[in-house]
Amino acid sequence: MITAVSCSTNDTTEHNDIAAARQDSGVTWVRATNTTPREQELIREEFGIHPLATEDVLNTVRPKTEEYPEYTFVLLKTASLAAKETTFRDELDTDPIGLFIGRDWLVTLSVSPIKVVEQTQRTVIDNPQALPERDADFIAYLIVDKIVESYFDVLDQLEIEIETIEEQIVETTDADVLTSLNEVRRELLSFRRLLWPSREAVGVLARGDPTQTRAITEKYYRDVYDHLVQLVELTETYRTLASGARDIYLSTLSQSTNEVMKTLTVVATIVLPLTLVVGLYGMNFETMPELSWSLGYPAVLFGMVVISLTIVIYFRRQNYI
Amino acid sequence: MITAVSCSTNDTTEHNDIAAARQDSGVTWVRATNTTPREQELIREEFGIHPLATEDVLNTVRPKTEEYPEYTFVLLKTASLAAKETTFRDELDTDPIGLFIGRDWLVTLSVSPIKVVEQTQRTVIDNPQALPERDADFIAYLIVDKIVESYFDVLDQLEIEIETIEEQIVETTDADVLTSLNEVRRELLSFRRLLWPSREAVGVLARGDPTQTRAITEKYYRDVYDHLVQLVELTETYRTLASGARDIYLSTLSQSTNEVMKTLTVVATIVLPLTLVVGLYGMNFETMPELSWSLGYPAVLFGMVVISLTIVIYFRRQNYI
Amino acid sequence: MITAVSCSTNDTTEHNDIAAARQDSGVTWVRATNTTPREQELIREEFGIHPLATEDVLNTVRPKTEEYPEYTFVLLKTASLAAKETTFRDELDTDPIGLFIGRDWLVTLSVSPIKVVEQTQRTVIDNPQALPERDADFIAYLIVDKIVESYFDVLDQLEIEIETIEEQIVETTDADVLTSLNEVRRELLSFRRLLWPSREAVGVLARGDPTQTRAITEKYYRDVYDHLVQLVELTETYRTLASGARDIYLSTLSQSTNEVMKTLTVVATIVLPLTLVVGLYGMNFETMPELSWSLGYPAVLFGMVVISLTIVIYFRRQNYI
Amino acid sequence: MITAVSCSTNDTTEHNDIAAARQDSGVTWVRATNTTPREQELIREEFGIHPLATEDVLNTVRPKTEEYPEYTFVLLKTASLAAKETTFRDELDTDPIGLFIGRDWLVTLSVSPIKVVEQTQRTVIDNPQALPERDADFIAYLIVDKIVESYFDVLDQLEIEIETIEEQIVETTDADVLTSLNEVRRELLSFRRLLWPSREAVGVLARGDPTQTRAITEKYYRDVYDHLVQLVELTETYRTLASGARDIYLSTLSQSTNEVMKTLTVVATIVLPLTLVVGLYGMNFETMPELSWSLGYPAVLFGMVVISLTIVIYFRRQNYI
Amino acid sequence: MITAVSCSTNDTTEHNDIAAARQDSGVTWVRATNTTPREQELIREEFGIHPLATEDVLNTVRPKTEEYPEYTFVLLKTASLAAKETTFRDELDTDPIGLFIGRDWLVTLSVSPIKVVEQTQRTVIDNPQALPERDADFIAYLIVDKIVESYFDVLDQLEIEIETIEEQIVETTDADVLTSLNEVRRELLSFRRLLWPSREAVGVLARGDPTQTRAITEKYYRDVYDHLVQLVELTETYRTLASGARDIYLSTLSQSTNEVMKTLTVVATIVLPLTLVVGLYGMNFETMPELSWSLGYPAVLFGMVVISLTIVIYFRRQNYI
Ligand SMILES: [Mg+2]
Ligand SMILES: [Mg+2]
Ligand SMILES: [Mg+2]
Ligand SMILES: [Mg+2]
Ligand SMILES: [Mg+2]
Ligand SMILES: [Mg+2]
Ligand SMILES: [Mg+2]
Ligand SMILES: [Mg+2]
Ligand SMILES: [Mg+2]
Ligand SMILES: [Mg+2]
Ligand SMILES: [Mg+2]
Ligand SMILES: [Mg+2]
Ligand SMILES: [Mg+2]
Ligand SMILES: [Mg+2]
Ligand SMILES: [Mg+2]
Ligand SMILES: [Mg+2]
Ligand SMILES: [Mg+2]
Ligand SMILES: [Mg+2]
Ligand SMILES: [Mg+2]
Ligand SMILES: [Mg+2]
Ligand SMILES: [Mg+2]
Ligand SMILES: [Mg+2]
Ligand SMILES: [Mg+2]
Ligand SMILES: [Mg+2]
Ligand SMILES: [Mg+2]
Ligand SMILES: [Mg+2]
Ligand SMILES: [Mg+2]
Ligand SMILES: [Mg+2]
Ligand SMILES: [Mg+2]
Ligand SMILES: [Mg+2]
Ligand SMILES: [Mg+2]
Repeated sequence: MITAVSCSTNDTTEHNDIAAARQDSGVTWVRATNTTPREQELIREEFGIHPLATEDVLNTVRPKTEEYPEYTFVLLKTASLAAKETTFRDELDTDPIGLFIGRDWLVTLSVSPIKVVEQTQRTVIDNPQALPERDADFIAYLIVDKIVESYFDVLDQLEIEIETIEEQIVETTDADVLTSLNEVRRELLSFRRLLWPSREAVGVLARGDPTQTRAITEKYYRDVYDHLVQLVELTETYRTLASGARDIYLSTLSQSTNEVMKTLTVVATIVLPLTLVVGLYGMNFETMPELSWSLGYPAVLFGMVVISLTIVIYFRRQNYI
Repeated sequence: MITAVSCSTNDTTEHNDIAAARQDSGVTWVRATNTTPREQELIREEFGIHPLATEDVLNTVRPKTEEYPEYTFVLLKTASLAAKETTFRDELDTDPIGLFIGRDWLVTLSVSPIKVVEQTQRTVIDNPQALPERDADFIAYLIVDKIVESYFDVLDQLEIEIETIEEQIVETTDADVLTSLNEVRRELLSFRRLLWPSREAVGVLARGDPTQTRAITEKYYRDVYDHLVQLVELTETYRTLASGARDIYLSTLSQSTNEVMKTLTVVATIVLPLTLVVGLYGMNFETMPELSWSLGYPAVLFGMVVISLTIVIYFRRQNYI
Repeated sequence: MITAVSCSTNDTTEHNDIAAARQDSGVTWVRATNTTPREQELIREEFGIHPLATEDVLNTVRPKTEEYPEYTFVLLKTASLAAKETTFRDELDTDPIGLFIGRDWLVTLSVSPIKVVEQTQRTVIDNPQALPERDADFIAYLIVDKIVESYFDVLDQLEIEIETIEEQIVETTDADVLTSLNEVRRELLSFRRLLWPSREAVGVLARGDPTQTRAITEKYYRDVYDHLVQLVELTETYRTLASGARDIYLSTLSQSTNEVMKTLTVVATIVLPLTLVVGLYGMNFETMPELSWSLGYPAVLFGMVVISLTIVIYFRRQNYI
Repeated sequence: MITAVSCSTNDTTEHNDIAAARQDSGVTWVRATNTTPREQELIREEFGIHPLATEDVLNTVRPKTEEYPEYTFVLLKTASLAAKETTFRDELDTDPIGLFIGRDWLVTLSVSPIKVVEQTQRTVIDNPQALPERDADFIAYLIVDKIVESYFDVLDQLEIEIETIEEQIVETTDADVLTSLNEVRRELLSFRRLLWPSREAVGVLARGDPTQTRAITEKYYRDVYDHLVQLVELTETYRTLASGARDIYLSTLSQSTNEVMKTLTVVATIVLPLTLVVGLYGMNFETMPELSWSLGYPAVLFGMVVISLTIVIYFRRQNYI
Repeated sequence: MITAVSCSTNDTTEHNDIAAARQDSGVTWVRATNTTPREQELIREEFGIHPLATEDVLNTVRPKTEEYPEYTFVLLKTASLAAKETTFRDELDTDPIGLFIGRDWLVTLSVSPIKVVEQTQRTVIDNPQALPERDADFIAYLIVDKIVESYFDVLDQLEIEIETIEEQIVETTDADVLTSLNEVRRELLSFRRLLWPSREAVGVLARGDPTQTRAITEKYYRDVYDHLVQLVELTETYRTLASGARDIYLSTLSQSTNEVMKTLTVVATIVLPLTLVVGLYGMNFETMPELSWSLGYPAVLFGMVVISLTIVIYFRRQNYI
């Protein structure tokens, strides 16, 4: 589906076909989504876009900015954490969106309708005077900015997951915590794989390399770039926090095993010698003089108490109990 | 074995010898495989190729692109996972293929016949008009593209192996899982060793450094380069997943040992004191008043139940059971 | 709240409004803190400051230096360790401060009043002759220098925390030590995230890239840069010390478990066989000739002593006891 | 000992002294080994070589290429694994060799006679026509090539050692494997310390930076450089394999301890309760009605079988046995 | 304390004050140590040295080379391992020394007298003709060379410490080894923090960037640079050896725990069932036919031997004993 709009500082007009929009004054913005091969061909011919570029939008290529003589091609992806995890490749729900920025035209191409594109459309149509200079590169900035802003929601979710795990780890050595932790680590890995090339792609625009980005817009892309740097940094930090959480989990487990072994050792070291003593006087030898002593039984009980106390004191000194 | 073809936009002609093919109009493509030293010499003389370059194709040198004044030498390798692993060096089955790209000629040299070369030959012969501009660098691109595409099959196999291991790890602490895991890590290592220099080699073509690559073909090599970047990235990610799987394996093992120790400690702590009690009343002292009490036996049984329950409650509170 | 001061080599005058201060001779220094949107707009208009820059001061953006044609924007943050840790993002109390350095003017903008700005103000007002050349970039240096100096207090606190942990680790295997260690690691992580971009930001000033920094002031920024390099380096070193401390903790735990197991094994290996012996002579067979030997009982006791000593000697040789 | 040879395309003449060799047509090659201080001075004066350079050959400096106006100084080292390891520094037997490459002269300087230099000498003397162009830089290439070739023998030995260890690790948890593994890791470390600077040193020649290396020889040095890149890469890979082997060793150990604990727990959990039961009926209470039941003994035996089976089934379900 | 010397190729004269030395022919070398603020000011004024530079010598700044228009400032540090370790910052005893290299003058400034400066002074005074060209940069080289040479003593000490630990680790699992190991790791860390910036500082001189270093002296600084590269490399290698030693320690500990558990399991698995058997025939049931069999007792003893042997054989097959 293709929608063509021509926007000048005074008004915004929707057109039936691309050619009409281009002839109107102002910037031509073509929004294409869920396109047929015929529609793709139409756009390619009208703006001289390379087939390899439109192909990239429809396949799962990593975010990038590519400079062509007549336009700049920016490929980004929207992201949200998948509700139910299946395989590694699907952990992060992503939707690619291609921005073709020309001198006085902009084409946005996506497989499915992208929410931030629709939001930007409303901004441009409703508040035409709010835009400092309504040019193709500034409208593209509005979209890029909103995409990157939405990444912070993903990051917030990941932060909550990690802090939940960190709280659980102090309380339990349950193996489920480790499974959750591994899931977060995989999500962070997927998110990082999205952020790194996105940062690079926006960096090209922020440095103002392409001829289609004006000096006045560079500052705005630099602002988005700062956000991507912050996102990358926080993702790396959360990876380290996840590593630390795993270390604590393993230490807590070792600590627990140590405590368990101490308990067993203390019990066995106290009870086993006493059992030997009572076994001794359970022997059936005909000649065992102690057995006929009238105070033999209380003496043995007293001896057992002495043995127990000695062992208890020893372990107390060793900090076992 | 040497096959010479001359391809122009209109038709493709097979020739008996290289010289004839070169005189015909259009691009000359010489396909050499399983060559005799004499045939190698013939090619080297006809196109002025350096002996060190043809030598590289026959030895196990890493992928690379080398620029010579008259031609560009691209060395790549096809890859498939070895069915039966023997030593580290043989884990990945690779076949080197050398592409010598001249102004209007292309030589493809390999030890054994390469499937993607034959596929490309058919494409070029059957659909001559399908190629935007039938030049040596574009035919070379078709081959390079197909080689890199085949790498995704290797990656898919590796992904399946890792996901199988991840599923097994949750269910068992069997040592076989770790052996499989190590095998995957070695395969990833071998694959990575292939991908890194390949990416670099294609990168040279994508940047258009050699004089033999035309501006129009650069974009196509850039597309292949993007695939190689993605392959490298996914390989690194799978390495991290493999690391994570090993961490989970070790944690699960520690967790299991912890559980086993808890079981032992609980059993011993309950049973050993009771055994002491019954041993006590198995002693043969002549004077043990309890033994003649009519309720002595039930009293002892009751005491044992009390002791057991106390210990059980204690361990429950400690989360041992 | 906005305060405007004009400072020349002879005297320093406080003005009611910005315009008056700019007309007076010498450098104009505008201190803005806790500003209303109206006040921000006033400053932006008076000095031609970009809205994205003032926005950065009010949000949580990482430290940076940005060059604009008419001024240089430096964003730094004061730091102190949070008394009570809540979430990861709040572990380090930071307050952003923006420095806008013009030819003959300086604007300092912050959300809440910054102590080092007030200290610098007093220095500038009280000792006008102490400054080598009272220009905007030098006054900015005084503030930057004091901010970086205060980072050393944070580092000293972190150092004390780590050394305390290292002392505790030798004495105990208590799990609390690990929790403290993890807290320090998180604080180091937060501090490092502050230092790295700050170093980069001051580096731009030390290299003298912006037109607003004079050759004479570069040396002073280089001095601050050296301090930031040292801070980064020490933070990395403390991270490694923390890693080492964790290794020691885990080793000590393993060592402790090993000792506990040795104790249990020695006790069980000595007592269990003896218990078997006494159990043997507790059997009720009618025909057990040893039971009626007059020296049977002492012989068994002697045998038990021999068995015990043999086992003890064996373990001594194994270095178990 | 100094030997001087003058080599032209037609013949190779041995000379008594350096001056005579230089006056003869063709390249002058001076081979110096096990030199006296007087001989070193003679060479330095004849060719204007800097004392710091000849000193480097005699000390243990890392491989490097240094460009002087009149000559290029290449320092490399032959390598073989020490038969008996003593300290870390001596693990790899290395012999430094200095190559001083002039316009039309070559000096090779070494402490002890180097086998590859003698081999090259024979090649140059016996097959003068085999060399494409007999110049100083090409003879130097022949020596450098042979040195790097010999590194592959070291690598093959290291590969065999690692694969032997990997096989042993699957079969045993013996501590000797770990000692062997650590030895290999140290050898790899030493070898890596040799390879990295060698690669850099040959890289300078392959890029053709020095004025003494002709365009025609560059390709040959590039071939050697490729081999060094491959050696470095394989060394890094073997380091990772060694890391993986250690991980497997530790996992196998943990697995073994887990199995041992399960055995103990199963045995104790079955036997201890039964021992309690038999101890119970070994008590000497006067009133224990069960003791006089005629089916008391078989009933207890039956009860013990039931208890055993219950516990066995429980452990089977837990996958303990 | 300030000492001024003027050195020409023929003679070396000590002067009472700096001005007199500067007027004498040849290079002026001012040695300042343990200076009063007045003396520092005197030097600063005489040679135009920046206050921030002299300040750096007196504080604990990392080694560096700074180029000023009229002189080059080199800050290095002597190093020796502290006999008694206190805190991390004091593990390495370091003494800063500042070298200010002018066209025809040299100032060496230090807090306390530096041994290598005194040694250089004697060399310069005693053998004036030994120096190739007595210029400020060459005298500075003599001092820098001696400082770096002394670092090898520190490295040798660290090597001995590590090799001692490696020998101990094979013999014992004592926790003291780990403490020594951690100490060495900290020392390596401190030493590394000294070496990295020193290498960088000398690298600036070796590249000949400052105008005060002549082409003829560059080679000498390059020689020192090579030594620093070697020192850095060995320090990194020793860090890896220390990591390997810790791995072996932990493995040995795991191995020991595994052995201890095997011992306990073997003993318990043999003795516990036998104890059950003898307990069985210690029961007091009235009807136990076996008790009255004449061969009951020897039959039970034989059964116990059979049980024991079966278990022993089983464990032998499991490689437990
Ligand atoms: Mg990590
Ligand atoms: Mg980490
Ligand atoms: Mg990490
Ligand atoms: Mg990790
Ligand atoms: Mg970690
Ligand atoms: Mg690790
Ligand atoms: Mg890691
Ligand atoms: Mg890894
Ligand atoms: Mg990892
Ligand atoms: Mg990794
Ligand atoms: Mg790994
Ligand atoms: Mg890891
Ligand atoms: Mg670290
Ligand atoms: Mg490390
Ligand atoms: Mg670390
Ligand atoms: Mg860490
Ligand atoms: Mg570490
Ligand atoms: Mg680490
Ligand atoms: Mg490694
Ligand atoms: Mg690894
Ligand atoms: Mg590794
Ligand atoms: Mg790794
Ligand atoms: Mg390693
Ligand atoms: Mg490692
Ligand atoms: Mg590892
Ligand atoms: Mg590592
Ligand atoms: Mg390390
Ligand atoms: Mg390391
Ligand atoms: Mg380390
Ligand atoms: Mg390490
Ligand atoms: Mg290591």
